Amino acid sequence: MSDKHLKNVSRRDFLSSAAAVGAGTLAGGAAHAAGDPLILEKQEFAQGLGVGVDETPYGLPISYEKDVVRRNVEWLTADTISSINFTPIHALDGTITPQGCAFERHHSGAIEMSKDEYRLMIHGLVDEPLIFTYADLERFPRVQKTFFLECAANTGMEWAGAQLNGVQFTHGMIHNMEYTGVTLRTLLEEAGIKPEGKWVYVEGHDASSNGRSIPLEKALDDCMIAFKANGEALRMEHGYPVRLVVPGWEGNMWVKWLRRIEVTEIAVESREETSKYTDVLENGIARKWTWEMDAKSVVTSPSPQSPITHGKGPLVITGLAWSGRGAIERVDVSKDGGMTWETARLAAPGQDKALTRFYLDTDWDGSEMLLQSRAMDSEGYVQPTKNELREVRGLNSIYHNNCIQTWHVKENGEAENVEIS
Amino acid sequence: MSDKHLKNVSRRDFLSSAAAVGAGTLAGGAAHAAGDPLILEKQEFAQGLGVGVDETPYGLPISYEKDVVRRNVEWLTADTISSINFTPIHALDGTITPQGCAFERHHSGAIEMSKDEYRLMIHGLVDEPLIFTYADLERFPRVQKTFFLECAANTGMEWAGAQLNGVQFTHGMIHNMEYTGVTLRTLLEEAGIKPEGKWVYVEGHDASSNGRSIPLEKALDDCMIAFKANGEALRMEHGYPVRLVVPGWEGNMWVKWLRRIEVTEIAVESREETSKYTDVLENGIARKWTWEMDAKSVVTSPSPQSPITHGKGPLVITGLAWSGRGAIERVDVSKDGGMTWETARLAAPGQDKALTRFYLDTDWDGSEMLLQSRAMDSEGYVQPTKNELREVRGLNSIYHNNCIQTWHVKENGEAENVEIS
Repeated sequence: MSDKHLKNVSRRDFLSSAAAVGAGTLAGGAAHAAGDPLILEKQEFAQGLGVGVDETPYGLPISYEKDVVRRNVEWLTADTISSINFTPIHALDGTITPQGCAFERHHSGAIEMSKDEYRLMIHGLVDEPLIFTYADLERFPRVQKTFFLECAANTGMEWAGAQLNGVQFTHGMIHNMEYTGVTLRTLLEEAGIKPEGKWVYVEGHDASSNGRSIPLEKALDDCMIAFKANGEALRMEHGYPVRLVVPGWEGNMWVKWLRRIEVTEIAVESREETSKYTDVLENGIARKWTWEMDAKSVVTSPSPQSPITHGKGPLVITGLAWSGRGAIERVDVSKDGGMTWETARLAAPGQDKALTRFYLDTDWDGSEMLLQSRAMDSEGYVQPTKNELREVRGLNSIYHNNCIQTWHVKENGEAENVEIS
Repeated sequence: MSDKHLKNVSRRDFLSSAAAVGAGTLAGGAAHAAGDPLILEKQEFAQGLGVGVDETPYGLPISYEKDVVRRNVEWLTADTISSINFTPIHALDGTITPQGCAFERHHSGAIEMSKDEYRLMIHGLVDEPLIFTYADLERFPRVQKTFFLECAANTGMEWAGAQLNGVQFTHGMIHNMEYTGVTLRTLLEEAGIKPEGKWVYVEGHDASSNGRSIPLEKALDDCMIAFKANGEALRMEHGYPVRLVVPGWEGNMWVKWLRRIEVTEIAVESREETSKYTDVLENGIARKWTWEMDAKSVVTSPSPQSPITHGKGPLVITGLAWSGRGAIERVDVSKDGGMTWETARLAAPGQDKALTRFYLDTDWDGSEMLLQSRAMDSEGYVQPTKNELREVRGLNSIYHNNCIQTWHVKENGEAENVEIS
């Protein structure tokens, strides 16, 4: 059957067809057709039997994708236990982040705790202190929603200039998963909040405990006690068996291995929320509570780790946008460092506090580009330039940098992290 | 800090709090509190450092979840190369299926093909035959959407009665992923369809080639040439680097390792669409083209592999619903084998040709249940009972069984696959 059909297409057709794909493909396509015994190779390939269904009860990516993994930057932090790695967003598309390559940040390492061992206590200013087993949690009505999580330190190195040459490292402390769990409101109402309760203090089972204070208003709004991410159990490094989901707010508040929720009258001001995650302004005064992650976007391809390899002609420019204050309404892309802008196409309407994928389908003339993206959210907030951000916040910060990122795309298709003065 | 707070809660509080969770929890909760040095254990646990970020560049599920994997049924097919395994839907929640545990079905095994080796040919009744490299495909405008894929043989064993005791095996030939790719329409328009072209014949690079005919109308409607699933590259077993997505239609048409698209005047009637996937009716005549998967649902928990372990009291009944003809509008749940029905809560409004999660939050009195679910889609179609389906289709079929499933939940919480006469 195949042979019969294949004979209808001549070698000349292959050449012309490759050309038809676009000007930039002409050279590459022709080279393939000239050197490759294309059809024979494929026919031979098709004879072999592949791998059966018992090979991978739980599958991993194919070997060709072995570079699409979380990566650490050795010099960035002292040790890997309290360190971070980064999501390979340069190589991903769509909006969901698989748990296997979603970045990790631990303060005392990822702990291995079974569902049987797990306990969650709610106490403090409540009518009745409660301790839940994992099985208890599964008996409450469940909710389900997709949210991004961004580390407060994501893009933090950019305050001091273009230091990390890859979007995985400048913007990879982010992921986006579909969570299933119980609302924090459900559990708090089970315990009964006393009138003087205004905050909840949450902490994890790990050695750092990573305690954070959350205003009661947020706790009762959209926070979740999550036990599934992207359909399956949370991975160990994402807080198995239970993590807190604090939609739109800095990742550090999404306490993993959640063990304790205390209703308090005032914020605890724990080590984890005073020694870290505050923003020292130009005048030396620290901005204390920066919970919501402001609207932000970045071009993920082309980018330093994802150069243009096909020459000029049709080019898909793509990236991610998100806002901790609502949905992404619009993303603009600039090829000339912000002088002119084109409105990108959103793959789907922006969703509340979740990643939005954008595309700009363009025709590259092969000249240099200073590639940028700029997000606008449902509150009308517009992502600022790096200089605009520095004017307001100074240079002392390491957290909460949501500036417009610039990639210098060269004539050979390679890209570099640069800063526009 | 922790000690101070923990002292506020007495042992008596633990007991009363466990009781507060619900009647069914009383026994279990009290047992824990009596036997366990609960708080001390946790405090000690918190001292140890966990695992650092370099441990798992690409992560896998925690060891405690090692049973949540794809499983094969040995006696069901002759060999694992041409066999199937099943998604562990009894242990999942939400709607996304991670690629690592999404069921596989191959006709000649999963093949390992690199992006460099990959070619896709479009020919036949087109103005210009085309061959695309993988890099070519990435230069076309991309789209993105979540769709379910169901094997035509899913639930097929139920035609002959309740044979497989687990929802993983009766309904596990399904998954739901967010796909990114190029529309088939885009590529067909690039080649130019001649007026006499009415069908496309698609086949894969694997030895079976798995050729299927698709009416041009569907090909131009919502079919996708997908290269990402759930954000990352397709796994080998799901068609790396490129598979066809045929939303709502039987899984066999979603050709993996897609190599060839021929525009034809009539259907090819290949081996793969005549020897298989046709439904032999009562009178011996075969219903040939059953492409759309009719509306269907199933309770995933409680179910034979997910018994009730906590006794009576609050119970979350949950499951999945889907329709190849549109969105799920409503799901009803029965506890008495279809005599009375309660409308379930949808976790989110049903989406076109994608899985919908439903919940029934109930209070179990500890008596036996005959648990069923019944889906209704946006076309007003209602999922039939097994007997209703048999009346129309007879007993010769092995494919396209979308009947209402019954689990017999016993007083001890265990569940069994049963049939109601």
